Amino acid sequence: MSLQLYGDDTPADVKNAKGLHLITQSTPNGQKVQILLEELADVYGTEFTTTLINISTNEQKKDWFLRLNPNGRIPIIIDNTVSPPFPVMETSAELVYLLKFDKDNVFGFKDELENSDALQWLFFWHGSGAPYQGNLGFFKRAQEQLPFAIERFRKETYRVFGVLEIRLSGKYTGEPRDYLAGKGKGKYSIADIGTWAWVKNYTFSGYTEEEMKALPHLVKWVDRIAERPAVKKGTGDKYKQQ
Amino acid sequence: MSLQLYGDDTPADVKNAKGLHLITQSTPNGQKVQILLEELADVYGTEFTTTLINISTNEQKKDWFLRLNPNGRIPIIIDNTVSPPFPVMETSAELVYLLKFDKDNVFGFKDELENSDALQWLFFWHGSGAPYQGNLGFFKRAQEQLPFAIERFRKETYRVFGVLEIRLSGKYTGEPRDYLAGKGKGKYSIADIGTWAWVKNYTFSGYTEEEMKALPHLVKWVDRIAERPAVKKGTGDKYKQQ
Ligand SMILES: N[C@@H](CCC(=O)N[C@@H](CS)C(=O)NCC(=O)O)C(=O)O
Ligand SMILES: N[C@@H](CCC(=O)N[C@@H](CS)C(=O)NCC(=O)O)C(=O)O
Repeated sequence: MSLQLYGDDTPADVKNAKGLHLITQSTPNGQKVQILLEELADVYGTEFTTTLINISTNEQKKDWFLRLNPNGRIPIIIDNTVSPPFPVMETSAELVYLLKFDKDNVFGFKDELENSDALQWLFFWHGSGAPYQGNLGFFKRAQEQLPFAIERFRKETYRVFGVLEIRLSGKYTGEPRDYLAGKGKGKYSIADIGTWAWVKNYTFSGYTEEEMKALPHLVKWVDRIAERPAVKKGTGDKYKQQ
Repeated sequence: MSLQLYGDDTPADVKNAKGLHLITQSTPNGQKVQILLEELADVYGTEFTTTLINISTNEQKKDWFLRLNPNGRIPIIIDNTVSPPFPVMETSAELVYLLKFDKDNVFGFKDELENSDALQWLFFWHGSGAPYQGNLGFFKRAQEQLPFAIERFRKETYRVFGVLEIRLSGKYTGEPRDYLAGKGKGKYSIADIGTWAWVKNYTFSGYTEEEMKALPHLVKWVDRIAERPAVKKGTGDKYKQQ
C-alpha cells in the first residue's frame, strides 16, 4: 500500500516525514487539527511536522494529494509511526484518530456515554454547522449574488448557533455548561475544538453584536476557549503562509 | 437528567419505551439507522421499538423533541437499557453508538486502523455527501429557482460520487474494493450504511444513466448493498407512515 501512497510528484517533506505529519492551511478546518496537535504538544510533548499548502493554487487536487485524500481537501494527517504510513482525512476523524496520542484522556473521554456525547457534537458540527457556515461564505463571495441562498445559509447557521446555545445554557437540563460534551459542566474536548474553529469567525461570517447578544453562553464559550495557549498557537503565525 | 428528558407533551410510546427506541421518518437519514437496527436484529435478535413521526408537521420542533435533540431533526435513538435513558442524535453518531450491540464486530472493526478507516468514510459522507445532496434537493424544490445554486450542488454531489468511485475502483491502490472501509476488498460496515442510504437515490437526485455509467464501481456497490434483506427491511413498508 505504501508504494501507491506516494507518487513521483509527492513533495519530499511529505515523503520523508518520520512521525505525525500534517498537511494543512490555516482555514477553520485546518485550525481544528492544528489546535489539537498543539494541545497534545503542550500536554505530552507530542512531536509533529507540517507541510503548509496554498489551496488557491489547487495543490490539493494534484495526483500526490489525491493519493492521500481522494476528496482533495485539507487538512490531512499522515501517521508515520505505523507501517505502512497511515493517512487520515476528514477533520473530525483526524481529531478522533489523534486521541490515540492522548493516553490520559485529557481531550477525549474514557466513559462510553461521555464519549458518545463528544462524538454526537462532533458530528453535529461536521454535518450541520460547517456545511452551513461554509456555504454562507461561498454564497457571500459568489460570482452570482443570490439573496435567497445567502439568506438560507445565514438563517441555518444562526439556527445551529442557537442549538449550541441551548446546549451550553442548559435550557432543558437546568444546568449551564462550560463545554459541549461530558458530565456536569462538561470538559474541554475534541467536540469543542472541532466546533470552535468555525464559530469563532462569527463576525467574519456577518453576524452582528446584536445577534450574538442573544447567544450569551455561546459567546462566553468562544472567549473561554480563545484564551488557551494551544488554541492561540494553533491559529497563529506558525501556520501562516510565508 | 431523566426528569428533564421527558416533558408533559412527550408521547407515551417514547416515555414508556423499555429498550432501544428509534424516533424516525423513512428519509435517507432515517433509513441509515433503520437499516443498522434491522441488521442487528438479523444477526443478534436485537430488539427495538419505533415512533414514526411526520416532519412536515414540524413535530421535531416541539418541546418534547428538542429535549431529546436540540437540533430538532430525525432520526434519534433513546437507549433505555441504561439509566437514566441516553438519547443519541446525529445519524453517524447513532451508527457508532449502536456498535455497542454488535459484540462480534460484524458491522464495525476491532482493528484500530480499520476502525479509523470506517470513521473517515462516515465523516466524509456526513460532512460532504449528505449536505451537498441534501442542498441539491432543497434548491431543486425551492420556491425561488436558482440555476447557479442548483448547478453548484449538482456538481459537488457528482464530485463526491466520484470520490467514492476512486475509493471503490482502487484507482490509487491497484485493488478494487467491494466496500468503503477495511482491509483488502473491505467489509460491509456502518461506513457503507451511512453512505448508501443517500447515494441509492441518485436517479431521484437527477443523475442520468449516462452520468452514472462513468461511476461503474459505485453503481455496483449500490446494487450489491440493495440486495441485503436488512437493507430491504430498513427501507421498506414497516417504516412507511400509515
Ligand atoms: N469535511 C472536510 C472539509 C475539508 C475542507 O472543506 N477543506 C477546505 C479548506 S477549509 C479545502 O480544502 N478546500 C479546497 C478545495 O475544496 O479544493 C473536513 O472536515 O476535513
Ligand atoms: N446531520 C443530521 C441531519 C438529520 C436531518 O437532516 N434530518 C432531516 C430529515 S432527512 C430532518 O429531520 N428534517 C426536518 C427539519 O429539519 O425540520 C443527521 O445526520 O442526523
